Amino acid sequence: MDSHEEQMARRTSGLGRRKFLYSCAMAFAGGAIFAHKSWSQQSPASAGPASPQLIEDLVAANRVLADQGVVDGFGHVSVRHDKNPNRYFISRSLAPALVTAADIMEYDLDSRPVDPRGRDLYSEVFIHGEIYKVRPDVNAVVHSHAPSVIALGVAGILPRPVYHMSSFIGGGLPVFDIRKEMGEDTNMLVRTAERGRSLARVLGQRPAALMRGHGAVITANALPLVVFRSIYLQTNSALQAQALSLNPNSTFLTEREAELVDKELWDQDRHLRAWELWKEKAMGR
Amino acid sequence: MDSHEEQMARRTSGLGRRKFLYSCAMAFAGGAIFAHKSWSQQSPASAGPASPQLIEDLVAANRVLADQGVVDGFGHVSVRHDKNPNRYFISRSLAPALVTAADIMEYDLDSRPVDPRGRDLYSEVFIHGEIYKVRPDVNAVVHSHAPSVIALGVAGILPRPVYHMSSFIGGGLPVFDIRKEMGEDTNMLVRTAERGRSLARVLGQRPAALMRGHGAVITANALPLVVFRSIYLQTNSALQAQALSLNPNSTFLTEREAELVDKELWDQDRHLRAWELWKEKAMGR
Amino acid sequence: MDSHEEQMARRTSGLGRRKFLYSCAMAFAGGAIFAHKSWSQQSPASAGPASPQLIEDLVAANRVLADQGVVDGFGHVSVRHDKNPNRYFISRSLAPALVTAADIMEYDLDSRPVDPRGRDLYSEVFIHGEIYKVRPDVNAVVHSHAPSVIALGVAGILPRPVYHMSSFIGGGLPVFDIRKEMGEDTNMLVRTAERGRSLARVLGQRPAALMRGHGAVITANALPLVVFRSIYLQTNSALQAQALSLNPNSTFLTEREAELVDKELWDQDRHLRAWELWKEKAMGR
Amino acid sequence: MDSHEEQMARRTSGLGRRKFLYSCAMAFAGGAIFAHKSWSQQSPASAGPASPQLIEDLVAANRVLADQGVVDGFGHVSVRHDKNPNRYFISRSLAPALVTAADIMEYDLDSRPVDPRGRDLYSEVFIHGEIYKVRPDVNAVVHSHAPSVIALGVAGILPRPVYHMSSFIGGGLPVFDIRKEMGEDTNMLVRTAERGRSLARVLGQRPAALMRGHGAVITANALPLVVFRSIYLQTNSALQAQALSLNPNSTFLTEREAELVDKELWDQDRHLRAWELWKEKAMGR
Repeated sequence: MDSHEEQMARRTSGLGRRKFLYSCAMAFAGGAIFAHKSWSQQSPASAGPASPQLIEDLVAANRVLADQGVVDGFGHVSVRHDKNPNRYFISRSLAPALVTAADIMEYDLDSRPVDPRGRDLYSEVFIHGEIYKVRPDVNAVVHSHAPSVIALGVAGILPRPVYHMSSFIGGGLPVFDIRKEMGEDTNMLVRTAERGRSLARVLGQRPAALMRGHGAVITANALPLVVFRSIYLQTNSALQAQALSLNPNSTFLTEREAELVDKELWDQDRHLRAWELWKEKAMGR
Repeated sequence: MDSHEEQMARRTSGLGRRKFLYSCAMAFAGGAIFAHKSWSQQSPASAGPASPQLIEDLVAANRVLADQGVVDGFGHVSVRHDKNPNRYFISRSLAPALVTAADIMEYDLDSRPVDPRGRDLYSEVFIHGEIYKVRPDVNAVVHSHAPSVIALGVAGILPRPVYHMSSFIGGGLPVFDIRKEMGEDTNMLVRTAERGRSLARVLGQRPAALMRGHGAVITANALPLVVFRSIYLQTNSALQAQALSLNPNSTFLTEREAELVDKELWDQDRHLRAWELWKEKAMGR
Repeated sequence: MDSHEEQMARRTSGLGRRKFLYSCAMAFAGGAIFAHKSWSQQSPASAGPASPQLIEDLVAANRVLADQGVVDGFGHVSVRHDKNPNRYFISRSLAPALVTAADIMEYDLDSRPVDPRGRDLYSEVFIHGEIYKVRPDVNAVVHSHAPSVIALGVAGILPRPVYHMSSFIGGGLPVFDIRKEMGEDTNMLVRTAERGRSLARVLGQRPAALMRGHGAVITANALPLVVFRSIYLQTNSALQAQALSLNPNSTFLTEREAELVDKELWDQDRHLRAWELWKEKAMGR
Repeated sequence: MDSHEEQMARRTSGLGRRKFLYSCAMAFAGGAIFAHKSWSQQSPASAGPASPQLIEDLVAANRVLADQGVVDGFGHVSVRHDKNPNRYFISRSLAPALVTAADIMEYDLDSRPVDPRGRDLYSEVFIHGEIYKVRPDVNAVVHSHAPSVIALGVAGILPRPVYHMSSFIGGGLPVFDIRKEMGEDTNMLVRTAERGRSLARVLGQRPAALMRGHGAVITANALPLVVFRSIYLQTNSALQAQALSLNPNSTFLTEREAELVDKELWDQDRHLRAWELWKEKAMGR
């Protein structure tokens, strides 16, 4: 069932460190050092260091998303390299609340790490790479398991903007159901480039997509805005569920209202007011 | 679509600092310094310093509202000047949890800052100024995005007092729907004097009003009471939703009960017992 | 409408300190020192100091109830004097989270303070005194506004034990509706001995009673157990609401099950395991 | 009603320390030292010290479960001895948040303490011992009162995996209703070996079982995984309730999807990413 690509991804990124070392030793012992060598050949070149501010913001985004309950031990956030649009940064496999600058890894858009350093890596990096490939307007991506968003998703209810803070979803969000896209026999995870491409296709030009039975993917042109959208997608989902339980005909923002407020608010960096607060709360702890 | 007034408001208060400096530079470069000059001419005179206690309470009110979850990165609270009823105080554009005395600005009732100092300002200050104009009994105003209040509002359910703590809503609260008042093409925000007047008109003599798809505005004769009402409007909304989901015919306070308990409790400063607690929790952190 | 008794209660216990001092001054100035003198004549004798452990536990009970969300700025807890069953202890008017040993006042069972010391006092002390009068088995009383309990109460749903932790409510709890007991024109508050007697009558021999649109009163033979019951009444109410929303025919404990587990658990001081934890959490902060 | 076994369990483990000392004194005074002597005769031999890492992990598991809200003052977690499969470790009777290495006790699979040291002991240890007897694959057991799980249980709704994090419940979980298994006259508690055997029988080969009106029991091959499953069973139960309230026909993971993702994720120690985070949060406080 698993493609060669998926097996490779698992072997190099999906193993606990002890198991990884053990399997490397086994591979060497048997002379079958194929995995290691092919990896070396595939490693893309680095695009050089990013601006320190970008890495600092990426660490802050990890901490804020954890502090605000959008991610728990799982979920991840990435940012496109500010010196080369064909590279992006994301943490090694680690709970977002624990991420520091030393944990940040550089990847190319095929989601190959520039320098794996034998580290455990997120297995679903393809979510990020495949979106960066087809969405030049996107510079930051969040993958979350936010509970209220998941509840809406499995109930088959599409997010609608309850208030102006979630105006970015006014145009509607698609749902990626891996079962429909990739067949009955998937393990739910976006662990291959093929699945990443499928998700990016369903996302299209929208700012975010739900992932049925899994979570969501949220995009923006920068880290503070992708964090803002991730937090308010979560809050809005909870509000929408409450409103619908009170009245199935609740009044949500019209597409026109959402469009106008989105333009007014975010053209003018208003979301940075929240970003400053969230950083202070998350980094001060 | 936007009035001249709205464009002015946006230019002077809606910009991030970097964008503001940039646009000032552009304005000077092109000789079109109209905005800056007209602003100088319009700046109202200061009514002099407020009592230190008033500013201290305004800072505390900001922190308490954030600590109690009534406001997040957004929302604001103001207080009328204790030396001149034609002036009020409110923070510069900042998350309420971060407000200090140094951030407090003085405005006239047309919501023009006495001394903008090139700072980012809240764009919806008209909510405050237009209410102070027509409600001499009101000395403090909160604008919040409290989630449980928003859920009731979009579901079209009017707040009713579930228990004695929320007796102030016994007479009923109106709902301001900007779409109905100002037309289909608004951006939801009360960013002009005209919209502020419309909201004040809908509020009438009530202590608070819901704002559909946006939040609420709450008033009182002093800061501790407006904070008290903001917190219990939120709690009451959540309780009302719970009660209605259990029984659509739940028993709320009668108007008479609410009137009697409101008189008993707040005539006698009982709400200060909570204010002391909230301040200790919010300022001690 | 208000009885003389109620007016007295308000005058001596319902005023903010500044207002109290002011009204005393006024009273003296006009020669009408009736209130003060009559109070002196009424003051009951002290039964002497309680054991330090009892006062320590009363302070802890205040802090734990606040820390666990059973009380907020309002609500109170009392304990019967361990040297004289005709006296009880309760804090002066203060948020439970802030109570220290210095705030504890001694009352007789008519709810007259032994030594008011000019302090603001809780106006609803009659809840406590009138229950102690008719329930010699009760040595500790909590009055709370716990939200989940209030929601059940106004929805007209009687608490049922969802699990063994709330076995004490297996025999059913009554609801005190002040409107039905005292007429349409009450201010909801148990601020007179007459209302306290009415509440005690409705309570009967049960461990607790709901108060419609107000909260609940919970009793036990000692402070740790009354705190335990207050906390699990709250948790149970939330659980019961959840279960009923999922299935109106949810299976609760039978009266027999509740009786057996209540006997097993509390005969053997099992609840002290939680009391130790709660004290550590609440007092350590 | 109570068997001799149950009375023994109560006498030796169910008493508060003061009551225990008192009853010992009474027993000696009357010459009836049967309980003490028979206990000495029954005490099993120790299997020697466990690896320090195992005890450290057991303490961490206690703290994490408390910190994540799976247990409150009650509930417990055990681990099988790593040197002898016929012994297991569990804390003395204590709130999990307070457990240290000094509180850990050794038991045999009949749930007899190796060295009771006069300590208060959990009365429901039979849950653990009887499962270890019949499930050699199980090395760690949690008994919790997690609220969202209890609500599902009493509503008669079987847990279904809402998302990949709870894939371990894809095969379904049984419900242990002590009333059906042991008759109408139980006190709900698994305080005898007989009741423990009954629970283990209902559990069968499943990873977990609900206990109606009581809580749940969760098993795994190691402590980090049993903690992971306990936390996500709780989260999943809340999510499932939310989803069902929005749409009774919500889409949950198919059994096949759950099986595949369970295999992928946990074969590769992915859950350790969360374990590291939870330990840091719980132990750092």
